[in-house]
Amino acid sequence: MTDSTVTLNPIANGELPGHQVELGGDAPLCLDSGAILGPYTIAYQTFGTLNADKSNAILICHALTGDQFPAGQHPITGKGGWWELMVGPGKVIDTDRFFVISTNVLGGCMGTTGPSSIDPKTDKPYGLDFPVITIGDMVRAQAMLIDHLDIEKLFCVIGGSMGAMQVLEWASKYGDRLYAAVPIAGAPRHSAQNIAFHEVGRQAIMADPDWCQGNYILEGKRPRRGLAVARMEAHITYLSEPALHRKFGRRLQEREQVTYGFDADFEVESYLRHQGSTFVERFDANSYLYITRAMDYFDLAAEHDGILAHAFRDTKVRFCVVSFSSDWLYPTVESRTVVHALNAVAANVSFLEVQTDKGHDAFLLDEPVLHETLSGFIEGTVRHSGLAL
Amino acid sequence: MTDSTVTLNPIANGELPGHQVELGGDAPLCLDSGAILGPYTIAYQTFGTLNADKSNAILICHALTGDQFPAGQHPITGKGGWWELMVGPGKVIDTDRFFVISTNVLGGCMGTTGPSSIDPKTDKPYGLDFPVITIGDMVRAQAMLIDHLDIEKLFCVIGGSMGAMQVLEWASKYGDRLYAAVPIAGAPRHSAQNIAFHEVGRQAIMADPDWCQGNYILEGKRPRRGLAVARMEAHITYLSEPALHRKFGRRLQEREQVTYGFDADFEVESYLRHQGSTFVERFDANSYLYITRAMDYFDLAAEHDGILAHAFRDTKVRFCVVSFSSDWLYPTVESRTVVHALNAVAANVSFLEVQTDKGHDAFLLDEPVLHETLSGFIEGTVRHSGLAL
Repeated sequence: MTDSTVTLNPIANGELPGHQVELGGDAPLCLDSGAILGPYTIAYQTFGTLNADKSNAILICHALTGDQFPAGQHPITGKGGWWELMVGPGKVIDTDRFFVISTNVLGGCMGTTGPSSIDPKTDKPYGLDFPVITIGDMVRAQAMLIDHLDIEKLFCVIGGSMGAMQVLEWASKYGDRLYAAVPIAGAPRHSAQNIAFHEVGRQAIMADPDWCQGNYILEGKRPRRGLAVARMEAHITYLSEPALHRKFGRRLQEREQVTYGFDADFEVESYLRHQGSTFVERFDANSYLYITRAMDYFDLAAEHDGILAHAFRDTKVRFCVVSFSSDWLYPTVESRTVVHALNAVAANVSFLEVQTDKGHDAFLLDEPVLHETLSGFIEGTVRHSGLAL
Repeated sequence: MTDSTVTLNPIANGELPGHQVELGGDAPLCLDSGAILGPYTIAYQTFGTLNADKSNAILICHALTGDQFPAGQHPITGKGGWWELMVGPGKVIDTDRFFVISTNVLGGCMGTTGPSSIDPKTDKPYGLDFPVITIGDMVRAQAMLIDHLDIEKLFCVIGGSMGAMQVLEWASKYGDRLYAAVPIAGAPRHSAQNIAFHEVGRQAIMADPDWCQGNYILEGKRPRRGLAVARMEAHITYLSEPALHRKFGRRLQEREQVTYGFDADFEVESYLRHQGSTFVERFDANSYLYITRAMDYFDLAAEHDGILAHAFRDTKVRFCVVSFSSDWLYPTVESRTVVHALNAVAANVSFLEVQTDKGHDAFLLDEPVLHETLSGFIEGTVRHSGLAL
């Protein structure tokens, strides 16, 4: 087992800040599919200091296209982290007080083993030989990292969107290893509409000849156009219609008149094209396939004969479930389903629906009510746990 | 000016039932872009018999991917027409009583001049040399056909989705040439979200190398994969989340277990793939670009300093505006905007929001309340008009 701080990033081909640890060499990961993975690498970042009794650790779980860089400068884009509003000294997730861990998920492309990693059996990138993974597998791998860090119990696991799925999985499978769980803008299972949107994105990638049946790295190509289309489509679902209207309406892009052509006449077109073209610089197309598939497969109740409450039986975890009123990708009804299941097992659960027109992406944005509520919840959990934090 | 009944269909390369008329040879069509088009061909179907005083004509306007075959067997798919529930003997649009006209829109690919037609200047398919058209241009061409048929005043113009845009354009620009207008599931302008969805579809087509910069016909290719992705994405927006859930939920496609792969595990994936692959057999990719662009450009108020009511000033047309409660592509608020504008000019307007979970596509489906309301509206218009129908 080795723990290094520099490795090549398969996407940027540059050095990656933070840590990478090889796990599973002795006890490989048994995936839900039945496949065995090991050894494998988990890339992660930490912020703050672990206290003496190792009781102040918060695990942040990222969304589909997120990574282990919620705070600090991103190594590829050069921009701030994706959750900079939430994570840092004196912020809601206060790195002066907590030891914050953020991992790149299994199947990802920022240093954790995924389809763009080298398969030790062939010395070539896995491509489609990478086993299909699940949210359960992602969390299993995270739990092995938490073992490796010698942390028995996390203070909190928190995340939005796919991050919320991981939070629910943590609470269900490892309930005695966390005090608090904060699933934001998530769902206990992927809806037919969300599977459908993901499928269109995957088909867009696989339709790109430069995808090369998944072997584009070996072929020296990258399916940029297909991945950009997938990103553009997904990006629409992250916003709300009112947010798009407020941001862009029908405003024209640096012109007085429509051009009667297929250029980006409207600002919203130009914005989407930019979203697509910048995304392909930082994300791997096969990772997009694998991670969307993992989300599609997520169905927490299915493992319990369709009764979601059974996924949380006898839980001691304190929950704060959050949704956003204008989120149509993971609408409030999904979070309510979680809350009802938790109520059915008499769990300690707070529920907040933030009134906002910002859509799904609101979990990444400046939403004072969200931030105040989470600060209060964390404070309450500190008191309730009796921990000296 | 010639009027023939058989011409090659550019998509199916087979004979087209119905009529095709060459127009604009003497007075070409002046497009909104400033371009001139003529001569051009309009393909159309008629049902029923025009009465002696030519007062019983109903014009049906089709949606983005529709055509002039609302009833009867479709020449390519072999299936029934897209509005068979509505149009026929004894039906809401009663072909025993009315003379029903249905045209393929300008820019289309079912016999009306569009980007896959032969440009008389070059003897090659137009491709991207076809001028960008608008909803206004489509309606201008239809009005020339109505002239050609020597009909002074239509009893009614009716259509859903993009068809509703044409209906609104008819009522606004040719208000003295119709008694009644029925815009169903439409909008007075295209929202930022809808422009965004269209743009993703266009980018999917243009990303397909077989699109060949629009010259695929000359190159002997067709951008099937890109067009299928565009169709799949659009198809999601035509349904509602509850409809998708009811139809498919998370049911698996002819298997007991997920396969941990990228096959269509879920029924909804299989359904979408089928939608994509059948669509490319009957539709032209460049037509998809041009018609979506026309929809994006539609903004009826913009021509009147942003005041929609001015588009209908002094109108004598009777309106029946219809929306569907679960339509998120053209939500009820869009229809209400039309109703408010019509109220502001004291127009005769009925408004119906059909309570249904079937989404935008409800206008094509068996919705008894819709059918009863339209029957009543047509009856009322007959009485009000004093026509002996």
